[in-house]
Amino acid sequence: MSHSSLPALAQGVNDLRASEIRELLKLINRPEIISFAGGIPDPAMFPLETIGKSYAAILGDPARAGDAFQYSISEGFPPLRDWIAGYLKGHGIETGADRIIITSGAQQALDFLGRAFIEPGDGVVMTDPSYLGAIQVFGTYRPHFIAVPMDAEGAKLAELEAAFAQKPKFFYLTPDFCNPAGITTSLARRAAILDLAYKYNVAIIEDSPYEELRYDGARIPSFAALEARRGAANGNLVIYVGSLSKVLTPALRIGWVSADAGLINKLVLLKQASDLHCSTVNQIIANELARNSHASQVAKLRPTYKARRDAMLAALKRSFPAEVTWNVPDGGMFIWLEFPEGVDCAELLAQAIKDSNVAFVPGSAFYATEQKRNTARLSFSLGEPARIEEGIERLAVLVRNVLQANAAAAE
Amino acid sequence: MSHSSLPALAQGVNDLRASEIRELLKLINRPEIISFAGGIPDPAMFPLETIGKSYAAILGDPARAGDAFQYSISEGFPPLRDWIAGYLKGHGIETGADRIIITSGAQQALDFLGRAFIEPGDGVVMTDPSYLGAIQVFGTYRPHFIAVPMDAEGAKLAELEAAFAQKPKFFYLTPDFCNPAGITTSLARRAAILDLAYKYNVAIIEDSPYEELRYDGARIPSFAALEARRGAANGNLVIYVGSLSKVLTPALRIGWVSADAGLINKLVLLKQASDLHCSTVNQIIANELARNSHASQVAKLRPTYKARRDAMLAALKRSFPAEVTWNVPDGGMFIWLEFPEGVDCAELLAQAIKDSNVAFVPGSAFYATEQKRNTARLSFSLGEPARIEEGIERLAVLVRNVLQANAAAAE
Repeated sequence: MSHSSLPALAQGVNDLRASEIRELLKLINRPEIISFAGGIPDPAMFPLETIGKSYAAILGDPARAGDAFQYSISEGFPPLRDWIAGYLKGHGIETGADRIIITSGAQQALDFLGRAFIEPGDGVVMTDPSYLGAIQVFGTYRPHFIAVPMDAEGAKLAELEAAFAQKPKFFYLTPDFCNPAGITTSLARRAAILDLAYKYNVAIIEDSPYEELRYDGARIPSFAALEARRGAANGNLVIYVGSLSKVLTPALRIGWVSADAGLINKLVLLKQASDLHCSTVNQIIANELARNSHASQVAKLRPTYKARRDAMLAALKRSFPAEVTWNVPDGGMFIWLEFPEGVDCAELLAQAIKDSNVAFVPGSAFYATEQKRNTARLSFSLGEPARIEEGIERLAVLVRNVLQANAAAAE
Repeated sequence: MSHSSLPALAQGVNDLRASEIRELLKLINRPEIISFAGGIPDPAMFPLETIGKSYAAILGDPARAGDAFQYSISEGFPPLRDWIAGYLKGHGIETGADRIIITSGAQQALDFLGRAFIEPGDGVVMTDPSYLGAIQVFGTYRPHFIAVPMDAEGAKLAELEAAFAQKPKFFYLTPDFCNPAGITTSLARRAAILDLAYKYNVAIIEDSPYEELRYDGARIPSFAALEARRGAANGNLVIYVGSLSKVLTPALRIGWVSADAGLINKLVLLKQASDLHCSTVNQIIANELARNSHASQVAKLRPTYKARRDAMLAALKRSFPAEVTWNVPDGGMFIWLEFPEGVDCAELLAQAIKDSNVAFVPGSAFYATEQKRNTARLSFSLGEPARIEEGIERLAVLVRNVLQANAAAAE
């Protein structure tokens, strides 16, 4: 009898490939490794005391506990949606609990938005570089990606208009301290991008996980806030995606979308079909944490991460060769390096892990269309300043050697 | 300036419609209503004491707590996958932790499997009737549904073979005490269905949320166990979907898939793209609960739910008119009613809520292709026997009136 194997997979899933880089990064859990790879919050900063009290309060009350461990509604726990609506309104966004859905982290919001908008071949505009997780999940819906380069103020307008003229469904960006490049879209650029979106009827998906992690300068209004200033009568093209993962804890998997009510209604039906609802108990805990600890966490995280950013910037300036350039992000978790042409940062990573006990993420993973090999992302969110400096100095030694070897080979 | 609205939605999402029945059932939270609608576990049966101890143990240890609230891997918490593998092996299934992925409830497993297999127009075989949530989520991928009727032993073989001959991707079923019809596929029928699957190379998605909730008779080996008996060399066509929701608690959102390793690898990549991973802390708690309370919960739930089933069956027999028929399920949560042709159970529900303070789910929602209007699902999982009897008697009065009115109108 012949071996029966499963029927063919659908193309969007069949095309998924394990990232070589993710596989390589699985090797970095050795204690001697200094890792700048993970774009994750420092667990030492989690509000564990408040978390413990929140669980104890719920579990100590049988009626609340019964509700907390039962099925719940697909749109999300109403008090948490109320808190989110109030938080967003406080930042100038016109919304309400009925225009918000809770998702399993911001990542699921991106999945649902991709699923809601993309038919195979539809245009999707991304910044170049862009968040790896967005490229991956939108990719499963087989869009036509259009990548738009950035300058220090965000996506370049002429290229963006050319992209919008191709009638894409949406433009995805992280306006503040973007992952991976650390760039913040300026206020003037946001206004100009919004003009283009209205001119060409392109939705803007604004992914804002880091916006509270600002270390310099004043907060810039979100696209959603700028749209609210224009007045609802003009339309609702901005889809705002938020998350509690970076300020409170990622493990509860709480993100959200605030958008046009009609779109939210469809996303609620999709949530119901897809996984019914987010964990009931997690939403209740998240509501407690948001109300009790969001503001104090932001106040605690800013100086801590700012000191780490500054330590990394100072160490780079002190020890890296002049041929390597980087940006100075106003917030977030990332510094983006550009090496001379000819440096392959995937090879550099393999050497860095093997010879220098340092890790980072090669930039090639962050391009929706053409990959650049000579870029790299460093995260400064984990580890004390002294350890960050040590890691940068180790990396600098390796980089000098590689650049010298490349120069010698070119002679 | 004209109003700018969002670009067109993709068809699979645009076609999603709010169910009228779900909207109606939102009205049943009044305390005077006796509801047989929700197919949900009784929250009074949740192992809240063990849950409380599990959280306290994790939160009391800073190192464990730091890990529990951080990001984690997409395949799921390894000790939980180990427990699941051991549990399934104990029931004759050939698997291992590397062939298991944790999903946000069994519902997300169905979503991912639909996404993995269905291109628009692909054949998908469903029992008639079938689980509403499966119909909905597979429907978003726009398959060609083929519905196969059941008898007391499960899907009818001649009709199933005709369906398989159309080269569908998979056959979805709940082998034990299926939702909504309460039917268990017999051992002989399972063997015959597996033969057909191998003959036509059709995957079997076996959804088993209720299999531990058996009140009569001996456990029947799962399709996955029957496939293991044939030997791995013959192939791996069975995809087993399980859940902790019905035995422990639904709110942690913990389900799983055990299947061919190649498929699991793709599902892990899909999980990573879709929502990164299930809640870290929830998986850790689920692992504690599974190890400490799964067996004792099963022992506690069986006699409780059995008494409720028996109370409902006795009350139906005592008070319902002879024109209405129903099955006697060996387990699960559901009894399926068939009314005479001409009775519209959606209308009956509206009347039952308004006049009799009783609720149930009309059967029409459970058909992938042609809806029958004269069927209804009653759940016996909530409420004490006396309250179940009271609800059935109230419903019986209404049903008699409706049948008499129909008969009078026909004269």
